[in-house]
Amino acid sequence: MRGLVLSIDAMGGDAAPAIVLDGLKLFAARRPEFTFQVHGRADELTAGVESRGLTDRCQIMHHEDIISMSEKPSTAMRRAKGTSMWGAVQAVKLGEAGAAISAGNTGALMAFSMLSLRKMDGVHRPAMTAMWPTITGRAVVLDVGANLDADSDQLVTFAIMGEAYARAVTGKTKPTIGLLNIGSEEEKGRDTLKLAAERLREPSLGLDFRGYVEGNDIPMGAVDVVVTDGFTGNVALKAAEGTARLVATYLREALTEGVASKMGALMASSGLKKLRTKMDPSRVNGGVLLGLNGVVVKSHGTTDAEGYATALALAADLASSRYMEEVASGLARASEDDDLREAAQ
Amino acid sequence: MRGLVLSIDAMGGDAAPAIVLDGLKLFAARRPEFTFQVHGRADELTAGVESRGLTDRCQIMHHEDIISMSEKPSTAMRRAKGTSMWGAVQAVKLGEAGAAISAGNTGALMAFSMLSLRKMDGVHRPAMTAMWPTITGRAVVLDVGANLDADSDQLVTFAIMGEAYARAVTGKTKPTIGLLNIGSEEEKGRDTLKLAAERLREPSLGLDFRGYVEGNDIPMGAVDVVVTDGFTGNVALKAAEGTARLVATYLREALTEGVASKMGALMASSGLKKLRTKMDPSRVNGGVLLGLNGVVVKSHGTTDAEGYATALALAADLASSRYMEEVASGLARASEDDDLREAAQ
Repeated sequence: MRGLVLSIDAMGGDAAPAIVLDGLKLFAARRPEFTFQVHGRADELTAGVESRGLTDRCQIMHHEDIISMSEKPSTAMRRAKGTSMWGAVQAVKLGEAGAAISAGNTGALMAFSMLSLRKMDGVHRPAMTAMWPTITGRAVVLDVGANLDADSDQLVTFAIMGEAYARAVTGKTKPTIGLLNIGSEEEKGRDTLKLAAERLREPSLGLDFRGYVEGNDIPMGAVDVVVTDGFTGNVALKAAEGTARLVATYLREALTEGVASKMGALMASSGLKKLRTKMDPSRVNGGVLLGLNGVVVKSHGTTDAEGYATALALAADLASSRYMEEVASGLARASEDDDLREAAQ
Repeated sequence: MRGLVLSIDAMGGDAAPAIVLDGLKLFAARRPEFTFQVHGRADELTAGVESRGLTDRCQIMHHEDIISMSEKPSTAMRRAKGTSMWGAVQAVKLGEAGAAISAGNTGALMAFSMLSLRKMDGVHRPAMTAMWPTITGRAVVLDVGANLDADSDQLVTFAIMGEAYARAVTGKTKPTIGLLNIGSEEEKGRDTLKLAAERLREPSLGLDFRGYVEGNDIPMGAVDVVVTDGFTGNVALKAAEGTARLVATYLREALTEGVASKMGALMASSGLKKLRTKMDPSRVNGGVLLGLNGVVVKSHGTTDAEGYATALALAADLASSRYMEEVASGLARASEDDDLREAAQ
């Protein structure tokens, strides 16, 4: 069953292939139903797969070339074939795997995915997701950088895709949706947002739309899915990541600045360990380029084995869910609405 | 000297006038050279000023009406005269005070300030600032919500105003400037940003422009002044505030979850107290609407006395600085460049 095969770009990421294979080992132990296509240089991978006891569950697919982390997408496109990243994505296209995962060059992965898998009918612009830790769990934010802008139709598409995605990976039956704005009042904000909000309220779309949310509502867990354009989403996500790092630095200083503080930190170590786990970026690793005819998951390039396993779990949940069908029917409903509106004019 | 008089809207803010007067008392003790116009209901203010030992340094200016926190700016505008907020701003316009401070309704304060003080020559859109705590100190971010958008000329104006402002309030001789984008590479980003970056690099402007910065660069202290449009700036600021609150909640849970953690927290209390101080929002309270013929400082509506004193210090630093002259000459240089460019075409 293609849904139970994951296709892995073993050469992508700052510490590939070692971290990739370590993450694969963690994931493989947790989800015995999955098998793997491992794309990359066979000479570098065979021993690594064997030493981790994964030989029976992995099919090594040899590709000589590697896309580097700093390569421009346009250059990468010209030499796509023969690379491990292209091989991993093509396995999804060919129906050999239910999802592909790479920790490599983001721009190249987006370009390869669009070229190989193509956009779904009704999607003008795919959107990149991020998982955001919240006080109540996790929220999906999209778009976080696949596009620089988004018009109201695209925001509606993002909401439909984001809702189906959140259902597949968070297990919530009816995820709530918010539109990111700079005030929760109806009259505020850009015209694009007003138009999108109006459409998202239409009962025919079948969405649980909760209206506008502000930046601080994301970590407070106000909604399950936060819809925004790629520029705003990317800036907000990175500002939040930087802030979490700033506070962690302050905390480290506070707990190492004197003997009493150091001893206190030692006594509180079980609580502090839980804090570290909660703030661990690997818990929320994995972004997905939604809107393509197939699932591709982007892992952070600097993630550790646990983070890579998180990205694999995301890919596994999506591959074995009804996400693609749900997006397709959601988009069909939205496009019916458009037709009716046009006919009424 | 008007520069040494501050004009205070004593009725603005969630806990006005008590918190306002408490903050005033703190500030007055630290800066003996300043005196104050205190605008609001005389019957409510006289006793409060007296009980805090401030009678000699305060002139109470009676106004019967108050703008409420939830009032729409358009409604507030119709009944501006006779309110404490309008009175406080007018004192700057009339040259009786060097700066006005209010913790009241933000939208109304912006509208009143623009109506009363008018925009400086060469400024099409004023911009709201925020102070952002960073690993190395503080950064100024603007615009954080006065406008929904900004074109490249407006971004250049924001940079000029933000630089002069940062010099006045942080004491840095040559503050560095960054333009907020979603990648630090030259080729990335919206055309507006590319145009603005090109102009900010022109030596004739005399700015220390460091190019693009990303969301995570703000808390890392990469530059002293971060320039962006009001929508992006507002979302980023609130996402960061929410994240800091999220981490603080996690930390509180971690340090109260068992006897050992509680005792540890007690032992580490001196370190943790410093952490609390560093993360205290009152340390960075005070936003300024830059680009008007006069200084108006907006304090957070929910701030405490210490936070209000911080906003007063910001107003004092600006009022006694050369900020207005510097902005005027910076804008003149930018407009000369424009003329030359047009002549060359």
